[in-house]
Amino acid sequence: MKSPIPDYLDEVLEDLRSDTGGATAQYIPELAAADPDRLAAAITTTSGATYTAGDVGTEFSIQSISKPFAYAAALMDRGLEKVLSSVGVEPSGEAFNELSLEGGTHRPKNPMINAGAITTHSLLVGRGAAQASRVEHVLDLFSRLAGRTLRVDEEVCASELAEADRNLAIAHMLRTYGVLEDDPHDVVEGYTRQCSILVGVRDLSMMSATLATGGVQPVTGERVMTPEVARQVMAVMAAAGMYDAAGDWLTRVGIPAKSGVAGGMVGVLPDQVGIGTLSPRLDEHGNSRRGSEIFARLSRDMGMHLFAPGQGRLDAVTAREGEHSTVLATQGTVQFTAAAELLDLMAEVVQDAVVELDVSAVHSFTDVGRRMTLEGLRRLRLEGHAVRLHDPGSVLPQPDLGDGSLPDLV
Amino acid sequence: MKSPIPDYLDEVLEDLRSDTGGATAQYIPELAAADPDRLAAAITTTSGATYTAGDVGTEFSIQSISKPFAYAAALMDRGLEKVLSSVGVEPSGEAFNELSLEGGTHRPKNPMINAGAITTHSLLVGRGAAQASRVEHVLDLFSRLAGRTLRVDEEVCASELAEADRNLAIAHMLRTYGVLEDDPHDVVEGYTRQCSILVGVRDLSMMSATLATGGVQPVTGERVMTPEVARQVMAVMAAAGMYDAAGDWLTRVGIPAKSGVAGGMVGVLPDQVGIGTLSPRLDEHGNSRRGSEIFARLSRDMGMHLFAPGQGRLDAVTAREGEHSTVLATQGTVQFTAAAELLDLMAEVVQDAVVELDVSAVHSFTDVGRRMTLEGLRRLRLEGHAVRLHDPGSVLPQPDLGDGSLPDLV
Amino acid sequence: MKSPIPDYLDEVLEDLRSDTGGATAQYIPELAAADPDRLAAAITTTSGATYTAGDVGTEFSIQSISKPFAYAAALMDRGLEKVLSSVGVEPSGEAFNELSLEGGTHRPKNPMINAGAITTHSLLVGRGAAQASRVEHVLDLFSRLAGRTLRVDEEVCASELAEADRNLAIAHMLRTYGVLEDDPHDVVEGYTRQCSILVGVRDLSMMSATLATGGVQPVTGERVMTPEVARQVMAVMAAAGMYDAAGDWLTRVGIPAKSGVAGGMVGVLPDQVGIGTLSPRLDEHGNSRRGSEIFARLSRDMGMHLFAPGQGRLDAVTAREGEHSTVLATQGTVQFTAAAELLDLMAEVVQDAVVELDVSAVHSFTDVGRRMTLEGLRRLRLEGHAVRLHDPGSVLPQPDLGDGSLPDLV
Amino acid sequence: MKSPIPDYLDEVLEDLRSDTGGATAQYIPELAAADPDRLAAAITTTSGATYTAGDVGTEFSIQSISKPFAYAAALMDRGLEKVLSSVGVEPSGEAFNELSLEGGTHRPKNPMINAGAITTHSLLVGRGAAQASRVEHVLDLFSRLAGRTLRVDEEVCASELAEADRNLAIAHMLRTYGVLEDDPHDVVEGYTRQCSILVGVRDLSMMSATLATGGVQPVTGERVMTPEVARQVMAVMAAAGMYDAAGDWLTRVGIPAKSGVAGGMVGVLPDQVGIGTLSPRLDEHGNSRRGSEIFARLSRDMGMHLFAPGQGRLDAVTAREGEHSTVLATQGTVQFTAAAELLDLMAEVVQDAVVELDVSAVHSFTDVGRRMTLEGLRRLRLEGHAVRLHDPGSVLPQPDLGDGSLPDLV
Repeated sequence: MKSPIPDYLDEVLEDLRSDTGGATAQYIPELAAADPDRLAAAITTTSGATYTAGDVGTEFSIQSISKPFAYAAALMDRGLEKVLSSVGVEPSGEAFNELSLEGGTHRPKNPMINAGAITTHSLLVGRGAAQASRVEHVLDLFSRLAGRTLRVDEEVCASELAEADRNLAIAHMLRTYGVLEDDPHDVVEGYTRQCSILVGVRDLSMMSATLATGGVQPVTGERVMTPEVARQVMAVMAAAGMYDAAGDWLTRVGIPAKSGVAGGMVGVLPDQVGIGTLSPRLDEHGNSRRGSEIFARLSRDMGMHLFAPGQGRLDAVTAREGEHSTVLATQGTVQFTAAAELLDLMAEVVQDAVVELDVSAVHSFTDVGRRMTLEGLRRLRLEGHAVRLHDPGSVLPQPDLGDGSLPDLV
Repeated sequence: MKSPIPDYLDEVLEDLRSDTGGATAQYIPELAAADPDRLAAAITTTSGATYTAGDVGTEFSIQSISKPFAYAAALMDRGLEKVLSSVGVEPSGEAFNELSLEGGTHRPKNPMINAGAITTHSLLVGRGAAQASRVEHVLDLFSRLAGRTLRVDEEVCASELAEADRNLAIAHMLRTYGVLEDDPHDVVEGYTRQCSILVGVRDLSMMSATLATGGVQPVTGERVMTPEVARQVMAVMAAAGMYDAAGDWLTRVGIPAKSGVAGGMVGVLPDQVGIGTLSPRLDEHGNSRRGSEIFARLSRDMGMHLFAPGQGRLDAVTAREGEHSTVLATQGTVQFTAAAELLDLMAEVVQDAVVELDVSAVHSFTDVGRRMTLEGLRRLRLEGHAVRLHDPGSVLPQPDLGDGSLPDLV
Repeated sequence: MKSPIPDYLDEVLEDLRSDTGGATAQYIPELAAADPDRLAAAITTTSGATYTAGDVGTEFSIQSISKPFAYAAALMDRGLEKVLSSVGVEPSGEAFNELSLEGGTHRPKNPMINAGAITTHSLLVGRGAAQASRVEHVLDLFSRLAGRTLRVDEEVCASELAEADRNLAIAHMLRTYGVLEDDPHDVVEGYTRQCSILVGVRDLSMMSATLATGGVQPVTGERVMTPEVARQVMAVMAAAGMYDAAGDWLTRVGIPAKSGVAGGMVGVLPDQVGIGTLSPRLDEHGNSRRGSEIFARLSRDMGMHLFAPGQGRLDAVTAREGEHSTVLATQGTVQFTAAAELLDLMAEVVQDAVVELDVSAVHSFTDVGRRMTLEGLRRLRLEGHAVRLHDPGSVLPQPDLGDGSLPDLV
Repeated sequence: MKSPIPDYLDEVLEDLRSDTGGATAQYIPELAAADPDRLAAAITTTSGATYTAGDVGTEFSIQSISKPFAYAAALMDRGLEKVLSSVGVEPSGEAFNELSLEGGTHRPKNPMINAGAITTHSLLVGRGAAQASRVEHVLDLFSRLAGRTLRVDEEVCASELAEADRNLAIAHMLRTYGVLEDDPHDVVEGYTRQCSILVGVRDLSMMSATLATGGVQPVTGERVMTPEVARQVMAVMAAAGMYDAAGDWLTRVGIPAKSGVAGGMVGVLPDQVGIGTLSPRLDEHGNSRRGSEIFARLSRDMGMHLFAPGQGRLDAVTAREGEHSTVLATQGTVQFTAAAELLDLMAEVVQDAVVELDVSAVHSFTDVGRRMTLEGLRRLRLEGHAVRLHDPGSVLPQPDLGDGSLPDLV
C-alpha cells in the first residue's frame, strides 16, 4: 500500500499550481531570476518520517528562514540572558518605526526582523569573532539540523551585498546605540552570507522538525539544542514570525512559521511536525504567496493548528483489579494532566495492600510527570502500601521514592 | 493518599505571600477597597479534576477576564466573519494610538483591549439588542462555563459607570467609524455590567478548562462552544492577551492568559488545563502581580508551556503478528502524527491477507486522524487485504471505506 | 477712478470658477446641501479698507474658523499660563494619534484641532460656566471682531449635534485625563453652537484684520484684545493652522490661515491684512479647495507672504543740518531697526550743541522703539547736548528722559 | 554718545552668566572639551549695523547652523522643485520615527534634521559631484554670507567622523530609498566637513541678516541669493528650525532660529535683524541653553517677534493740495497695504486735472506695490488726468503706464 499523505500533498500543490499571483523578489537580480513556477512541500514528523511533493530537488537560499535557527545558535553561544539584553521578543506591529527598535533600550524588537537578525548574527561565537568563524558556525549548525552538509551560494551573497544599504543603515544605527559591538559592514556581510545558505524543502522540514522534538534531529537522533532553546525559538516564531500579521496567522493558520525572500517557508508544531515549502512568488507582505496557502491548507485539512482541539490528548490512565493488587496503568507521554489523573486514582486506592504501576505502554515522562508520579508512589508507600513498578522499557529509571528506596520491580 | 498537587499549590502561594508589591486598582473606589492580601489559585484539568489553594471562597468581579469569553459568545452569535469584520486579532503593540484602532478599517486591534471588548459586547445577540438581553446572555454563558449560576455585582458596576469616560470616549469614537452600531452609552453600560460579574478562582479555572477541551465543560460535560470557537479564543489570547508584552509572556511563561483589574487571571493550555488565580495588587502594567508570578511558577515547575517539549506526544502505534493476521494498534488521541505512523505501518504490511486495526485503547480520533485512518483501510482493501476493525468503544463510528462497505468488525 | 484691487480679486475668482474639484462636507446634511458654486473673497487692510469680490452676501457657518478667535477669548478669560496648561501650541503632525493628545500631559497638541478647540471652549468664562454664557460670550466677541451683530444657525447646530460622536469621544477622553473639567456632552454642545455662528467673507476679513493690527478692530477702532493675545493667536495659526501640512503652507503660501468645513477660510498678515474667502468644496484634507488657491494666488501675485522680502521695511531715518542744530528725522512705525539706526546717527552727532528729533512723520512707536529713542535722547542730554523734540502728533507722549525732565518741544 | 544697544546686550549676557545649567555635547571629544563658559551675542540689522557683546572673538564649529545656509545653496544649485522632491518642509514632530522620513515618499521631513541636511548636502553642485567641490562650494557661500573668508576645522571633523554611525545609518537608509544618489560614506564625510566650518557670532548674525534682507549681504552689498530663496529658507526655519518644539518657539520667542551642537545659534526676523549667539552648554533638547534664553530676552525686551504688533507698519500715505494739482505722497517701502491706500486716495481724486505722485521719501517698492501704483497712474491717465511723478531717487524706474507712455517727471 502506498501512503496517502504524499498523494494529499501532491493534490494541494496541484490545486495551487494555477495561482500565479505575486512576483519574485525584484530588488536582488539573483532572486528576481528564480524560476517562479517552482513549487514544493515537505513534512517531517517528530518520529522522523518525511513526506514530500513537488520540486523537492530545487535548492534556494534560506534567507530570513535562517533567522530562527541563527537565534537558536546565539542562545546556545551566549545564553538567554545576554541574547535578551540585545534583542527583544515582541511582535514588531505596524511599521511606525523604520527600524523597529524598542523605545528606551533601542533593542531590536525581535530576532525575526532584520535589525534583530543582524544583531543576533553579531552575537554568534563571541564578541569580536571573525566573520568567517560566525558563518562557519551557522553553516555547521544548519547542516546538523538538516542532516546533511549545506553550503553558501556566493553569487546570491554577492548580489545581495550590492544592495545592502538598508541592512547597513540598520547596522550603523545599532552601533550608534551600542547594541551592535562589531564593525557594521563586517557583520552585515556575515549575515548576508548566512542568508545565502542553500537549502531544499526537505532540509527545511528537517530543521523545523528538530524544533518540534524539542531539539533532537528526528533522523540522525542527534540532540542539536536543548529543549529550552527549542522552546524559546518556537515561541518567538509564534509571537513574531509572520511580520505584522502575527495575530491573523496565529488564529487562522496556527502554525508558527517563518518565510524567506527566496520563496521558502518553514513551520513547526511542537511534538508533531516540521514543514518546509517553496514557491518564489511573494505577496505584498513579502511572504511566499503559495507557500502561505499550503500552510493554510494543512491547518484546515489536517487540523495542524497550535490550538486545534484534541491535539495529542492523553486520557488513557486506567485502574484495574489485579490478583491481590490494584494495577494502575498509563501510556503515551505522561505530563502534568496524565500524572494528575494518576495521582487521583492513587488517592482513591484504599483496599489493596499492593499497588502496581504499569508503565509498559508509556513512551516517556516529562520532568513534571516523572516527579509527580514518584511523589504519588512515595505517598502510597508512606501510607503502608506495597508499591510495585512494571517498567520493561525503563522509561522511569532510578525511581527513587525520596527516601533512597525503590519500588519493587515486576 | 492525598494528592500532592494541592500541597504544591499551597507551597507556591506561601512563597508569594510576602510579596506585597503593587496596589489595587485605585481609580474605582469599589476595587481600591478590595482586600489586597487575598491570594488563591485553581487548576482544572481537561478531565474535570480541580485543584485549589488559598482564598477559594473569595468572589471578585471578572473585569477584563470577561473579554475572551464574551468574544466566544460573539463568535457563536454572529459568526467568525462578521466578528472579524468588526474586531481584529493583532497584538496592540506599543500604545502609540490612544484607542488602538487599525489604520484603514478603524477596527479595534483585538478583542482583549477595551475598544475591542466594547465592540464585541455590542455584537452579542444581534444588532440593536436590548442591553438587558446582552447582559443576560453573557451571564448565562459564563454560568454554563463555570458550572454554576453567577451574578452581577451592581455596586461595582455603579462605581465603574461613574468613571466611565474612557470607555465612553472609545464607544463614541467607534460609532464615528460605524464600528459600533448601537448607542454608545447603552453599550458601555452593558459592557460594564458584563465586567461586574462575580467569580471565584474555581469558576475561572473551569471556564478556561472549557476552552482547553475544545469547548466541553469538563465537569458538566456540556458542549458550550464548538472546537473552532475555542480555538479562535485561545489563539487570540496567545496573540493579544497580555497587553503590550505578548512576546515576553508567550516565551517566558507560555500560557495564553488574561488578567482583570480586580486581580483575577485565567490561563489555558489546550488539552491540558485551565487555570484561575486571584491577587488584587496590580503591577505597573495593570496585571495582577502575584497572579502573574503564579503562572510563571507553574510554567517553570510544571512544564506548563505551550512550547514545552514532550507535551502529550503520542508515539504508541504498534504492529504485531496475530494468528493469520497483522494487528495494528494505536491509542490515546489519533491526530495527524499518529495517523501518519499508522499509514506507514500499513504501507509495510504485505505478507498477510488479513489486517486488523485495534483501536480499543484509542480515546478519540481528530477529524484528520479519522480520515487518514479510513483512507489507509480503504487502500488496504483495494490491494486485496481483508480488513478488520476492533473498536469496542465505537470511537470510529460509521467506518465507511469510501465505497459504502465497512470493515469486518471483530 | 475705480481701485483696481476689486478688479484683481474678481479676476482671481473668475480664474478659479471653472475648478469644480472637491466636494462639500458630506457627513453633515446641512453642509452637504450648501451651494457648492459659491465663491467669494474679502481683504481688509489694517487701515480698515475692505475689498471684496464674489458672493459677498452669502452667510455660512464659521465652523473651525471659530477656533483661533475662541482661543483669543480663552486667553483673555483665563490668561496664557492657564490656557497653555490645558492646550499646547505644537503642530499635530501626521495623525499617528487618533486624538492628537501630547504624550505625558495629555494636553491636546494645539487649539486648532478639535481636541484643543473643545478644551478651549470649556475654558471660556470660567470653570463650570453655563453653556449659554459661553456661547453668548463668543458670539459677543465674534460680533465685535466682525463689527456687526452675528447669530447662531440653530439648524446647522442641530444637524451637527446629531453626528457629534467624534467630538463626544474626544471630550470624554479629555475628561478621563482631567483636561476637561466640565460635562462632556454640555461642552460639545456649546462648542458646536460656537461653530454654527453665521458669517460672510467680509466678517472673516474684519475678524482677521483685527489680529493683524494687534487687536484693534480696524473700522470700529475698538481694542478687542491686547497685542499679546493677537500675537499668540497669529503665531499658533502659523504653527498649526493648516493641519498636517503646516510647513508646506508656511513656505509656499506664507499666510497664517484657518479653514472651516463649511468652506470658509481666514488668513492674516500682521500689520498688513486680514483675508476671508468662501468656497464650499473641500479638498482631501478638508480644506476649501478654491479658498486655498485664492490664498496661493494672493501670496504669489501680491507678495503677501510672511517671509516675503521688503515687507514694510523702514529705512527712512535721516539726519540733516538745521540752523545751529542737527535734525534727526524718522517716519512710519519706529521699531527696533529704525530706532537702532536713529541711535547710530545720534552717536555720530558731535558738532552741534542742539539736536532736534523730528517725529512729525512717524505713525507710531513700538514699545522698544520708544524706549530706545528716549534712551538716546537721555544720553545726548547727559553729554551736554540740548535736546529738542518736534512731535506735532503726540506720537511720543510723556517723553521723560529718565530724570524727570522732558526735551524742549518745538 | 555711545549707542545703548551694546550696553543692553552686555546686560543680557551678564544676567545669564550665572546660569551654568546644561553641558557641552559629550559624544564628540572635541566639542566636549570646549570652554563651557563662553558667552557671546551679535545682532546685525538689515542696514548692516552690527552690535556685539561677550566673547566675540571665539570661533566654534557651525554644526547644524550650516543646515539652513546649505539649504539655500541647494535651492540655488538645483532649483526649488528638485530640492522639494528630495527633502520636505514639514516639522518632524515627536520622534516616533527614528529617521523622520515621510511615509510614502521616504523624503526626509525637512532640511533641518540630519536626514534632510545630509540629503541637502548631496544635492549641492550636482549629482555625482566630488566631495571636495561640495565642501568648497558651501565654504565659499558661507564666506560670502559672513563677509569674510571662513575655514574648516579638520580636527573637529575628524573627531565627528569617528562617531558618525548615526549619520551613516541615515545615509545608507536614504540610499535604500533612492533619496540619496551618491556614496553614503562620501556624502557623510562632506556633510561633516560642512558642519566643521568655523564661525564667530558676528559671522552668524551677518549670515542671517543676509536672509533678513531677502538675500543681500548688508555690509558688502552683494546679492548672495534671490529673495525667493531667502524666503524659503526663513519659512523652513520657522516651521522646523527648533526641532520638536516648533510651536512653543514660534509663539513664545517668535524668531525663526537654528542651533548647533557646538553652542551656536542663529535667528532671523525678515526686514529687521540677523542674530548670532554662542554658549556651549546644551539643554536636554540639544539646543544652547543660554543661547535660547538670549533669544527669549530679545523677543520680550525688544519686541523682536514675527507676530509682534506694529512691526514696521507703514501708514504714511498722504494727499495734499498743490498748486493746480493734487499731490499724493508715500514713503518707506511701498508694499500691498501702502499701495492699496494710495489707490484709494487716487480713487477719491476728482477735482484736479493734474495729479502728482511724490515718491521722494520712498525707500523702495515691492513688486506688487510697483504694479499697483503704476496701474493707478494708468487709470488716472485714462480718466483724463494729467499724471506727474516726483521721483528724484529713481525708486520707480521705467514707469510705463501700460500703453508705452510715461508720466511727466517733475
